Amino acid sequence: MYRNPFATVVVVGVPGVGKSTVLSIASRVLGERGVRVLVVNYGDFMFEELRERGLVSSRDELRRLPLRTQYEHQAAVAKRILRYAEERLGGAGAAVLFIDTHLWIRTRAGYWPGLPLHVVQELRPDLIVLIEADPREILARQARDATRYRQDYADPRVLEELQELNRREALVVATLSGAAVRTVVNREGEAEKAARELVEAVTALYT
Amino acid sequence: MYRNPFATVVVVGVPGVGKSTVLSIASRVLGERGVRVLVVNYGDFMFEELRERGLVSSRDELRRLPLRTQYEHQAAVAKRILRYAEERLGGAGAAVLFIDTHLWIRTRAGYWPGLPLHVVQELRPDLIVLIEADPREILARQARDATRYRQDYADPRVLEELQELNRREALVVATLSGAAVRTVVNREGEAEKAARELVEAVTALYT
Amino acid sequence: MYRNPFATVVVVGVPGVGKSTVLSIASRVLGERGVRVLVVNYGDFMFEELRERGLVSSRDELRRLPLRTQYEHQAAVAKRILRYAEERLGGAGAAVLFIDTHLWIRTRAGYWPGLPLHVVQELRPDLIVLIEADPREILARQARDATRYRQDYADPRVLEELQELNRREALVVATLSGAAVRTVVNREGEAEKAARELVEAVTALYT
Repeated sequence: MYRNPFATVVVVGVPGVGKSTVLSIASRVLGERGVRVLVVNYGDFMFEELRERGLVSSRDELRRLPLRTQYEHQAAVAKRILRYAEERLGGAGAAVLFIDTHLWIRTRAGYWPGLPLHVVQELRPDLIVLIEADPREILARQARDATRYRQDYADPRVLEELQELNRREALVVATLSGAAVRTVVNREGEAEKAARELVEAVTALYT
Repeated sequence: MYRNPFATVVVVGVPGVGKSTVLSIASRVLGERGVRVLVVNYGDFMFEELRERGLVSSRDELRRLPLRTQYEHQAAVAKRILRYAEERLGGAGAAVLFIDTHLWIRTRAGYWPGLPLHVVQELRPDLIVLIEADPREILARQARDATRYRQDYADPRVLEELQELNRREALVVATLSGAAVRTVVNREGEAEKAARELVEAVTALYT
Repeated sequence: MYRNPFATVVVVGVPGVGKSTVLSIASRVLGERGVRVLVVNYGDFMFEELRERGLVSSRDELRRLPLRTQYEHQAAVAKRILRYAEERLGGAGAAVLFIDTHLWIRTRAGYWPGLPLHVVQELRPDLIVLIEADPREILARQARDATRYRQDYADPRVLEELQELNRREALVVATLSGAAVRTVVNREGEAEKAARELVEAVTALYT
């Protein structure tokens, strides 16, 4: 399996863990070092793909599609992300693609892997980053920005179970892709520190 | 990886967990809703395959075959199951194939995966269902039907270890196949409830 | 996926667990039974491969190579090991190749899998053996032979975490390759017993 022309970094974390903040700081720091950076959201590309095919017209419909239908389009979404990134990250020098996604999607059938083998083989990630935090800190962040988060992640046991499922899955996805696995703890008020840790891990991929 | 023409559901659980009962109720309920259902036992097809090839003449011989010999025939067993199911589940409307199997087989060499990658790629499951129960309830069921169960599963720690190995493996197999994972707890006297949960999960695959 | 002409056994364990001792006794016992045995160290072959390609000239340089560069050569290392083994283990009768390696490599980017899918598919292992021991016994062994071990494995929590990561990964690698998984506990002063357990597991692969 060959590698993409840019370092491909999958970033996962439960809702409210502070993923966007850490990613935004890390992107700025990398940019200051002359690295081209692109952040994409897997779900946005999934929606776009299925909308273009006339299968859904809103985000809510996406969640109600039969699993077997969603499955058929997963690999096309990965290809769409890479095409998009190649257009924007081409040229000389170091470049990094961050893919903001979920390793497990809660569906009516059960937990469904966000990066199954046939998607991993398209996406070819170099690094899987788990952003983690204490469930109580996560809940406090969710409460401060209540409009943004879905109710079904507001339970500390669900958050802890999801974090553990993510840890297990990160090892599996890394083994399927030959990627490294990095856990970054995002402590309250220390997003800068978490971002710097992420930057150092990413940098080790190509230097 | 494409999907089979019928929803393909792998059902696992330690001996005595009540798998047959739950599967039989779920099959009846799905049948009443007009869904064609077929339940197959992976071990039966493995034995049939190896018997036809002149490698074994009894079930006991199967367990004593060298692991490397069994390995060579695993993928053929998956193909045999799908051929058998295609003949019986063909036609219009929803159809479900339940495959009753084990994720780990205890052999003289060690734990051996029942659904390794080369088998998963033939079988193409849509859903992995873990039927679980409290080890004490499992032991009580084993005791009530003593002729049916092997002695080597009569230890609560072995049962708990196997259930944990199954949980881990279900995530791996799901990631290899793009299947969802569902845990169904079969509490004493509540097999109807467990079966209904299974039916809802299966239904979410195609509606 | 076909099998190698010799039983291929991956042996892993944290530094100081007693892997070399157990492997050396097991090789002697198998040899006395007329089985041809070869033990190779994955890291040695990795170094040789990268040295020949002019990428490194010392072991220390190996650890500082960008991860993406190391990745590109992993599969070639597996092929090199099998070529080497085929020359030495050819001929009639049972033969066993032991591969001494690590399932996780600690890099600057994070934990990096030693046997990712693209390597597993070249190596085709039949058995994954986890040599484990009590972290306190491991630390005592490291202290007795201080020149041999790196400082960064001298923490009982790091050792326990690595053993747990190895357990999880052994299941994944087994599922990718159709190999069995065996845990062998190497208790202080009982290396003979551990070696015999390993010999029995290996023997079950082909008899």
